[in-house]
Amino acid sequence: MKALFFDGSLSFRNIAQPRPGPGEALIQVLLAGICGTDREILQGYSNFRGVPGHEFVGRVVECEDKSWLNRRVVGEINVACGRCSWCARGLARHCPHRSVLGIVNRDGAFAEFLTLPLGNLLEVPPEISDEAATFVEPLAAAAEILEQMRLEPGTRVAVLGDGRLGLLVSQVLKHEGAEITLVGKHGWKLDLARSWGVRVLSLGEEELPPASFPVVVDSTGSPNGFREALRLVEPRGTLIMKSTFHQPATFDTAKLVVDEITLLGSRCGVFRPALELLRHGHVTVQHMISKVFPLECGLEAFQYLEQTACLKVLLENR
Amino acid sequence: MKALFFDGSLSFRNIAQPRPGPGEALIQVLLAGICGTDREILQGYSNFRGVPGHEFVGRVVECEDKSWLNRRVVGEINVACGRCSWCARGLARHCPHRSVLGIVNRDGAFAEFLTLPLGNLLEVPPEISDEAATFVEPLAAAAEILEQMRLEPGTRVAVLGDGRLGLLVSQVLKHEGAEITLVGKHGWKLDLARSWGVRVLSLGEEELPPASFPVVVDSTGSPNGFREALRLVEPRGTLIMKSTFHQPATFDTAKLVVDEITLLGSRCGVFRPALELLRHGHVTVQHMISKVFPLECGLEAFQYLEQTACLKVLLENR
Repeated sequence: MKALFFDGSLSFRNIAQPRPGPGEALIQVLLAGICGTDREILQGYSNFRGVPGHEFVGRVVECEDKSWLNRRVVGEINVACGRCSWCARGLARHCPHRSVLGIVNRDGAFAEFLTLPLGNLLEVPPEISDEAATFVEPLAAAAEILEQMRLEPGTRVAVLGDGRLGLLVSQVLKHEGAEITLVGKHGWKLDLARSWGVRVLSLGEEELPPASFPVVVDSTGSPNGFREALRLVEPRGTLIMKSTFHQPATFDTAKLVVDEITLLGSRCGVFRPALELLRHGHVTVQHMISKVFPLECGLEAFQYLEQTACLKVLLENR
Repeated sequence: MKALFFDGSLSFRNIAQPRPGPGEALIQVLLAGICGTDREILQGYSNFRGVPGHEFVGRVVECEDKSWLNRRVVGEINVACGRCSWCARGLARHCPHRSVLGIVNRDGAFAEFLTLPLGNLLEVPPEISDEAATFVEPLAAAAEILEQMRLEPGTRVAVLGDGRLGLLVSQVLKHEGAEITLVGKHGWKLDLARSWGVRVLSLGEEELPPASFPVVVDSTGSPNGFREALRLVEPRGTLIMKSTFHQPATFDTAKLVVDEITLLGSRCGVFRPALELLRHGHVTVQHMISKVFPLECGLEAFQYLEQTACLKVLLENR
């Protein structure tokens, strides 16, 4: 089958089609999204070798349980062992023996086919387009915040970073009743957020006063953004770290202790609430898709991402 | 009156006796404890100028409300403005306009007398000795953890650092039903903890496996200790930062995000629960006092602390 393959460098090639193991489905990928993590993998993150890609929508083409055949699905990306204490406690996403689709020890979605356990799959309701369905994984990551903390309606939240994650977080928390201020530096991304009714602030235009938000979300992906988030959060407030930067960060821990800040690391989430948000139109993603490339042009798609300040690029199987 | 005074260097001198303002009491200091923060103040922390010292027990000798006269008291160290939104929300300890006894804009306890608002004072029950009462402030800081998070009985907690704070935290959380492992490097301090029934581990003797505790308290006061705490905490676990190090710390934030760690900055606490813990003998502090110096020998006391691996040195007014 056709696939993008990473073995130190990324190439488009023909590789063997995967065969579903017991309890697994073979899925034909329809569309897959390129994520920041994919670009980091190309820089060496997680020492991954194989087919990257973990945001996808596909169709089940082979599996033991015939009722799944032909269903349009998205899939949770963590494949847990199912036997350890983490799995027993319902924290399979933190199973230390897990593989992760396109990230750790499991070939991903930048290919014609992939395999996943049936337990990882969710059917996509007809109200959700293929394009929108590729956002389920990042949207679940945004919605994960609500699983980790209680957000009172009307809570003022600063979201730092107008990238795709920041835009999704803004929509999810706004839908939950929070009063969002999105801080970014890209006029057109901020305009998009403004069109959803989000209050936006262009970086450098106006400096927010220190300690002025009870909740701050850092989705900048940069140590500077994190330090700014720490500056903005109120004493006894919560700083949610939504993005990683794969270099050690330096910051003033005394502020964290003296002001009794809660720092909440937040990663990927469960898919069901994300599907519901999309199905009911509580979150819109259409305008976040910048371009769709055929899978064959995957290398071009990555180059395009490097050169363009775009939000989302998809790869399509034709 | 006699006092230790810091104006870039510490000296013993005679200064004017403070006069209580409206609503304040004049307190004769009986005993005062030297804390790590005091030593940091001598290194320039908080740019403090004046009389340091914030752990004390004293006797009220002058105030408008005569019912307070002659009572033996301890005092909360944050003096809030009482008018701002923080104070209105019951978070006076985070009032941005507050002064802090012996730390920020308010002369402290290394003197014959000090003043504090009556609202800051708590009477010391007769069951608690003068010596033990000087521990109310640090004990309140240890007990603050229980105000910030819920700790299920039987929770395994690693406490890093066998200094005074680590020893108090171990006792407080053990009393709450947690299963403590105290990690330190001083044999005699660990022996003390062992005598209280705490499981102890000497640093370097045995390496704890990574991600092996749901709750880790860092009371080492060092960036290395913090990094070790981050190594030990389980995915979805809580790392409580109980001590500050006044240099920026560098650490791997990706671990925080990927493992969804909650980092909880924790500072000083309310006095009432600490008084109760002492009154009922749930926490013992007697063996933590290394030496008592007369106030006149305060400089010597600081030197002694520099040269000795001791837990607590007190200054006494004779």
